[in-house]
Amino acid sequence: MTKLQGSSSLAELFQQQREQILKDYFTLLRFQSISAEEEYAGELIACSEWIANYLRQMGLQVEIWKTSSYPVVYAEDLRAGKDKPTLLFYGHYDVQPVDPLDKWLSPPFEPTVRNGEVFARGAQDNKGQLFYVLNAVRLLLQRDGALPINLKMCIEGEEENKSHGLAGILSARKEKLKADYMAVADFDIPDRNTPALTLGVRGLCALTVEIEGSNTDLHSGQHGGIAYNPNHALVELLAKVRDANGRILIPGFYDDVEELSASQRERLNMNFDAKLYEKTFAAQPIGGEKGFSPHESNWLRPTFEINGLSGGYGGLGFKTVIPAKAMAKISCRLVPKQDPDKVSAQVASFLKQHCPKGLKLTVTEHGGGKPARGDPDSPIARATADAYQEIFGAPCQLILSGGSIPISADLAETSGAEIVYFGTGLPDDQIHAPNEHFGLDRFEKGFHLVTRMIERLIDMR
Amino acid sequence: MTKLQGSSSLAELFQQQREQILKDYFTLLRFQSISAEEEYAGELIACSEWIANYLRQMGLQVEIWKTSSYPVVYAEDLRAGKDKPTLLFYGHYDVQPVDPLDKWLSPPFEPTVRNGEVFARGAQDNKGQLFYVLNAVRLLLQRDGALPINLKMCIEGEEENKSHGLAGILSARKEKLKADYMAVADFDIPDRNTPALTLGVRGLCALTVEIEGSNTDLHSGQHGGIAYNPNHALVELLAKVRDANGRILIPGFYDDVEELSASQRERLNMNFDAKLYEKTFAAQPIGGEKGFSPHESNWLRPTFEINGLSGGYGGLGFKTVIPAKAMAKISCRLVPKQDPDKVSAQVASFLKQHCPKGLKLTVTEHGGGKPARGDPDSPIARATADAYQEIFGAPCQLILSGGSIPISADLAETSGAEIVYFGTGLPDDQIHAPNEHFGLDRFEKGFHLVTRMIERLIDMR
Repeated sequence: MTKLQGSSSLAELFQQQREQILKDYFTLLRFQSISAEEEYAGELIACSEWIANYLRQMGLQVEIWKTSSYPVVYAEDLRAGKDKPTLLFYGHYDVQPVDPLDKWLSPPFEPTVRNGEVFARGAQDNKGQLFYVLNAVRLLLQRDGALPINLKMCIEGEEENKSHGLAGILSARKEKLKADYMAVADFDIPDRNTPALTLGVRGLCALTVEIEGSNTDLHSGQHGGIAYNPNHALVELLAKVRDANGRILIPGFYDDVEELSASQRERLNMNFDAKLYEKTFAAQPIGGEKGFSPHESNWLRPTFEINGLSGGYGGLGFKTVIPAKAMAKISCRLVPKQDPDKVSAQVASFLKQHCPKGLKLTVTEHGGGKPARGDPDSPIARATADAYQEIFGAPCQLILSGGSIPISADLAETSGAEIVYFGTGLPDDQIHAPNEHFGLDRFEKGFHLVTRMIERLIDMR
Repeated sequence: MTKLQGSSSLAELFQQQREQILKDYFTLLRFQSISAEEEYAGELIACSEWIANYLRQMGLQVEIWKTSSYPVVYAEDLRAGKDKPTLLFYGHYDVQPVDPLDKWLSPPFEPTVRNGEVFARGAQDNKGQLFYVLNAVRLLLQRDGALPINLKMCIEGEEENKSHGLAGILSARKEKLKADYMAVADFDIPDRNTPALTLGVRGLCALTVEIEGSNTDLHSGQHGGIAYNPNHALVELLAKVRDANGRILIPGFYDDVEELSASQRERLNMNFDAKLYEKTFAAQPIGGEKGFSPHESNWLRPTFEINGLSGGYGGLGFKTVIPAKAMAKISCRLVPKQDPDKVSAQVASFLKQHCPKGLKLTVTEHGGGKPARGDPDSPIARATADAYQEIFGAPCQLILSGGSIPISADLAETSGAEIVYFGTGLPDDQIHAPNEHFGLDRFEKGFHLVTRMIERLIDMR
């Protein structure tokens, strides 16, 4: 890779190559890289190879790390030298499942632009945000022939499905992953014009709960009043988890929750626009514990969510069945310093204790990830906040996220890095839902944001 | 149709014609007459015509009654005269859906005999039981040239899908349907050697409950603690319906429940083999209200069953979604003198009152059918019980059914008839399930049972 002749600015370079960048972005989106569904294994492998090839062509040193699951694509450019800081970008090439498919206005793996927004599964989460990071690095290299800092990238294929593969190789890859700073481009800004740096994420633990009542589906006439309907048992069991104030009644659940100091809290932007929320989602912000504001509930408090309920008939009309089994998918979001394994065990224990007797309860713990929080005064946080302010022309807010990057806390610990989370997503990008989309304007802002983060980081030392 | 020459007994006639009877039975079973699935409309029409033709060849006067749905086949032989009683048989030619198809050991519409049992959808419910009724009448006519009583048959094509068609023509066909007695051959005996007459069925009302929390599925990280998860709302709402003793808390729900008198109760066989139940279904009989035995709960008490739960993710692993909607399919079994529409309205009202505020609840009432109970001292009940005792060589028990024949109460009321329910099914015939089957021995016993019912009825007046 040779330095580009002439004095093109990054903005000019981006415009010159815009067509090809979008073409490549759409190619990336066409991989059906759904990590939760085994039938797509081939698509995940192909997607990882495509990314590895893209990184190689950018001029990075690329390695493909085998894991127990899908490969991790690792890339580096350490030519800045040992006296310069090292920044590790983390991202993922896998995506969420696409059901319900009939709610998509255009097929999830055929990227379609409507009103300047790209609609596709992964358009934002995380292929879109990952791809502007790649292009920021690529065009910095093209313009300058070298980067001002050392760069590492760790791009995995299982973020949406527990990151077991990457988790399993962290200690073996510790030396390679060492970095001063770590940045995760998988986050939102509150609205199109307001920059915000995300200082932390919640942790997560997930469980599947299955209640078996009989060895076969039963006729609700012949058996109603005799057999204990597992749907009832499930409903009764799950209703015991929270009280009327939304407080979770699982013993020990809140024990390790760390209170934020007043000074920490003051720096966070806690404003919540309830009217905008209601307008956007047709939902009132009433899901949290009584006594906590929406952002407090979403950022500073753990939750217990039923992500899925299933049992018996779900079609048109009715069918008078008592199903053999009923199932719930559960996940808890966790805050510092809750431990996913500890909370998961508390949940499982509570469910076992309170399941009606005479039915067979199976609780499967899927693991999860730790919560993480960055330091607003770290060089990477300051560089990113400054870059945000420059690109958006407005003061950068400090916020937290209610979401999780399950591996991020462990990865930051392994690499020894200060962490920040950033991005140019919007709350209504429909990630994990039908019609996921990402704005081409925000793709471009993300590109500039990353170039400025990298350039500013060198000044922050 | 002329009287058969010679003195052949019915048993001899049956044996002589056994091969042809089974051939015709299998032809009847091959019609894919699934009333709940529109694509089988042609099969239902063809099946109704085949039955009409069979009845005509038996020597009955046949009419095909159009309805808003599938035709009702009506047949009569009133030659016994006005001083003789009239018996109306009710049956149905439609069958339940066949899914899950992969659980069938032989195709559901290719009747296959294994160990003396005919395996096919409808082998028992109701084609098998209907067809022995038809052959009982046919061979009585063949042997004697006439029936000792007036006979009517009403065979519909929508019993498994709410009987709307027949319900809609009841008043218009009132004169034709007038009868002294009505018999429904769609029921079980407790075991192969124990005869039992079913004196009543429960009624039914069904509802679909949908709770909408937002206009799209939401990410449980970004929205957890802000949005009220409709899965939680559904669980909390449904858990309020019953207390810890299984008693339904819907105001007025039990108001119209008719208590059985001690003398009525004494005549019912309330023995329940809990060990056999557990062995057969791997389920303990613990689903009823505390303080009621299994048969009391199943026969004499109404139920509230959640037939289906669905909301959010139900696949492998997990998906951190807060679904836009959650849904439950509900049905209540009802006992005399509960009214389906009244109870349905009570349920809907309770759900509306208790749904957490801020979410959108939609309750769809599907209607249902009334409970019905026959008189054990009526001529038809005594004739049937005596016939059972004679054919099985054992005392006939009196029982009730927890199931429903939604149209039967209205049909009995329209015809002005005393009603009984009978049959030679067994609890493990897998009706409504894969591998439905019916024993050839029980088909033959059913045949003899009906001939003796008819012959004895004349003596009971």
